[in-house]
Amino acid sequence: MIKVTIWNEFRHEKKEKKIADIYPGGIHKKLAEEFKSQTDFEVRIATLDEPEHGLSEEVLNDTDVLIWWGHMAHSEVEDRIVDRVQKRVLEGMGIIVLHSGHYSKIFKRLMGTTCNLIWREADEKERLWVVEPFHPITQGISPYIELAQEEMYGERFDIPEPDKVIFISWFEGGEVFRSGVTWTRGFGKIFYFRPGHESYPTFYNKEIIKVLCNAIRWAKFAGNISVPKEPLNVKPLEKLKILAREK
Amino acid sequence: MIKVTIWNEFRHEKKEKKIADIYPGGIHKKLAEEFKSQTDFEVRIATLDEPEHGLSEEVLNDTDVLIWWGHMAHSEVEDRIVDRVQKRVLEGMGIIVLHSGHYSKIFKRLMGTTCNLIWREADEKERLWVVEPFHPITQGISPYIELAQEEMYGERFDIPEPDKVIFISWFEGGEVFRSGVTWTRGFGKIFYFRPGHESYPTFYNKEIIKVLCNAIRWAKFAGNISVPKEPLNVKPLEKLKILAREK
Amino acid sequence: MIKVTIWNEFRHEKKEKKIADIYPGGIHKKLAEEFKSQTDFEVRIATLDEPEHGLSEEVLNDTDVLIWWGHMAHSEVEDRIVDRVQKRVLEGMGIIVLHSGHYSKIFKRLMGTTCNLIWREADEKERLWVVEPFHPITQGISPYIELAQEEMYGERFDIPEPDKVIFISWFEGGEVFRSGVTWTRGFGKIFYFRPGHESYPTFYNKEIIKVLCNAIRWAKFAGNISVPKEPLNVKPLEKLKILAREK
Amino acid sequence: MIKVTIWNEFRHEKKEKKIADIYPGGIHKKLAEEFKSQTDFEVRIATLDEPEHGLSEEVLNDTDVLIWWGHMAHSEVEDRIVDRVQKRVLEGMGIIVLHSGHYSKIFKRLMGTTCNLIWREADEKERLWVVEPFHPITQGISPYIELAQEEMYGERFDIPEPDKVIFISWFEGGEVFRSGVTWTRGFGKIFYFRPGHESYPTFYNKEIIKVLCNAIRWAKFAGNISVPKEPLNVKPLEKLKILAREK
Repeated sequence: MIKVTIWNEFRHEKKEKKIADIYPGGIHKKLAEEFKSQTDFEVRIATLDEPEHGLSEEVLNDTDVLIWWGHMAHSEVEDRIVDRVQKRVLEGMGIIVLHSGHYSKIFKRLMGTTCNLIWREADEKERLWVVEPFHPITQGISPYIELAQEEMYGERFDIPEPDKVIFISWFEGGEVFRSGVTWTRGFGKIFYFRPGHESYPTFYNKEIIKVLCNAIRWAKFAGNISVPKEPLNVKPLEKLKILAREK
Repeated sequence: MIKVTIWNEFRHEKKEKKIADIYPGGIHKKLAEEFKSQTDFEVRIATLDEPEHGLSEEVLNDTDVLIWWGHMAHSEVEDRIVDRVQKRVLEGMGIIVLHSGHYSKIFKRLMGTTCNLIWREADEKERLWVVEPFHPITQGISPYIELAQEEMYGERFDIPEPDKVIFISWFEGGEVFRSGVTWTRGFGKIFYFRPGHESYPTFYNKEIIKVLCNAIRWAKFAGNISVPKEPLNVKPLEKLKILAREK
Repeated sequence: MIKVTIWNEFRHEKKEKKIADIYPGGIHKKLAEEFKSQTDFEVRIATLDEPEHGLSEEVLNDTDVLIWWGHMAHSEVEDRIVDRVQKRVLEGMGIIVLHSGHYSKIFKRLMGTTCNLIWREADEKERLWVVEPFHPITQGISPYIELAQEEMYGERFDIPEPDKVIFISWFEGGEVFRSGVTWTRGFGKIFYFRPGHESYPTFYNKEIIKVLCNAIRWAKFAGNISVPKEPLNVKPLEKLKILAREK
Repeated sequence: MIKVTIWNEFRHEKKEKKIADIYPGGIHKKLAEEFKSQTDFEVRIATLDEPEHGLSEEVLNDTDVLIWWGHMAHSEVEDRIVDRVQKRVLEGMGIIVLHSGHYSKIFKRLMGTTCNLIWREADEKERLWVVEPFHPITQGISPYIELAQEEMYGERFDIPEPDKVIFISWFEGGEVFRSGVTWTRGFGKIFYFRPGHESYPTFYNKEIIKVLCNAIRWAKFAGNISVPKEPLNVKPLEKLKILAREK
């Protein structure tokens, strides 16, 4: 089983009728419903206004992959919770950051950059082109995903050199964007996925959900638990050998 | 099931008693025996002196992951077979190139570089340090693998920028080497793994075998089959949509 | 001085009046004229129909950066000349491959992949967005370069993982393309730059020329000449030291 | 001219006679002396115990490349100064982080990871092997640099995927380390260089100084100043064009 925690800011859906009409109960509720059919997922929900934003030590320690949607209230996320999430990612928890989450504290913390971009809200057509078809995140997807209407995000997107640029978006109004990007940090995997503006029904698109399901499976830690995660003062050669083997 | 084809040059083992004593029946036989316990592997063998070097269209089309060990007879591998293997890798077959295979036609073809390095045979201790512990190829391995005696390969290794450097080797005599390296080319995954000189019992080491088993599982294609593999003259926008979706 | 050799296939310009009208004397002539104002360039020309395609050992050994434009006659380039160019790139000569050169023998040789893509000729607007503004190739360029009409090239472009994707193109008809990409192979630097279809006046665009001038300066070798370029059988520790220092 | 600011914690040299004997006046003084012969450098010094740690807005705005040496007092560096340095790097100032600076606030901030490693002080021989000889940072250097005695740093070094691993170190006691590594973040270039423990005369080594001089020249911004550094709400197509061109 893959333990998935969906974190949603959950403010737009409470404040604006237009958004609530698209996502009654919130974006997290829609995602949770979509994930129900995945028999290898165990889904949990957390939102900004819960104590500790729903991200206690217990919850995070029991999470394989965290999904993050935030927008208007990035600044309200407490630094100590950001520290905690960052620590868990570096220890091996996967994280999938959606759309306006590019400007969240946790994403900027993991990236080390401004994460700036250019944008426009104009109900534009978006096409996400697959540029790395060998990647498991693209399995079962068309050569491109088309969304009839989305917010535009454009380059230059101020992110560190990606491990892989998996999708590049085309927008009707004349821009491009690296819209599906992976990194690893510490023992954890990161996937940024651009679509998902609150005012469009993007998470009703079956291919978008398929990408997220693929990404969750990819992001779950499957590496080496014996490599030290803490600084280590070691002895030379033969002595170190013993240390390394006794796990 | 993962269909694994082990290709071995199989010359040293026939010509030199010292080598035959270590690997009676050949390196490929030893590897095949080790892989038997893996219930998800279906193993086949191919060697240089068979017709088409054992790599007919039928065999390659029925192979998920090809393992390649060669050394003294690289030049005897026919170019048309190299073409065939390269084509299959670019279509999605994984390939794992071992040790002196760094100088094989197929590896140089996929890399585009000379694949030169410095070397020495002096029965030296080697340590392969894990530098990317998040990677599935390192799962279940110690912080480093130690081999009591191996041939030394040293930098500068003339390879293209790796996707990931997973192991870096330390040698007693004073050198280092990027000894576990991944790339993707086309739809196929490539793993180069340095150890395995014919005159040492390297493939009796359980951790070395574990790395190979991990690498086989990683190298099997799990990507997107709908993305065109051939050049494609497309129509603008709406027409292209139909083309792309009808698969 | 940077010794630049411009190689042009020079067939379209001789066979089609429409092309000759745009580039009288050939694309190479136009580029050479544009480069004249660069006081640090020393420019030479070579074309397919000259002996050895104009690329003798003498010419290549005296070239810092080679520019390559080819299209309809890729197959006529002799393999021994391709070998020679590849060898020089791996030794440190820079190479800039333009537009349809993506399908040239030399580019496919250096990449190891098919270099396939999708395409369309429909007089479309292209925008090349700068995605790596820290890179010297982008110096003095706008946030994007706009070309009123160009041939479309679209993803998936079957190239190895780039060192840097510097430009991403947007096309009116709905596609995107990694249109400015760098790699290193051996001691040599490679820049692929998409624009430059023979039927459009792309090389009259001042920003396109600026990119090429920047790329030429970037591609000139400025690295380490003491690192061995040939395989080397070395002695352990102290003895190797002597070898390495005595240059 | 390249405006270089050398930042040194300058505590070991004041507290321990053994260190002061090696670097009278501090590590920064030694580096400044070495850089004097470089006619294209304009060198300034800053230390922890100065107001604002010597890194006022004025100083940073007038710095092309910042060098950072810190060790025992990382925690005393004020967060607002770290913010300021990070901002300048993202705007294009180069930064070269030396040795124990791997654990400084600014380096961890830019990396987003723990920057953990394993270490040992045992007067060991270190060899830094050049693995990317095409890179300007390696110009004029031997195939490897040998230091008779240094502190050992070993893998796994918890850093993000490097742009380029330029040097890999070998240590007598059995470890390896990625000891010369580049990244870009925002518009700025970063070079981490491992050697330089306070108790060894590493900065008296002419090749080490040569690497630093090369790195300073490489790290100076030479990119594109027209690309927006701030988030930008843009208009579609034609209107955006005006915005982009009018700089």
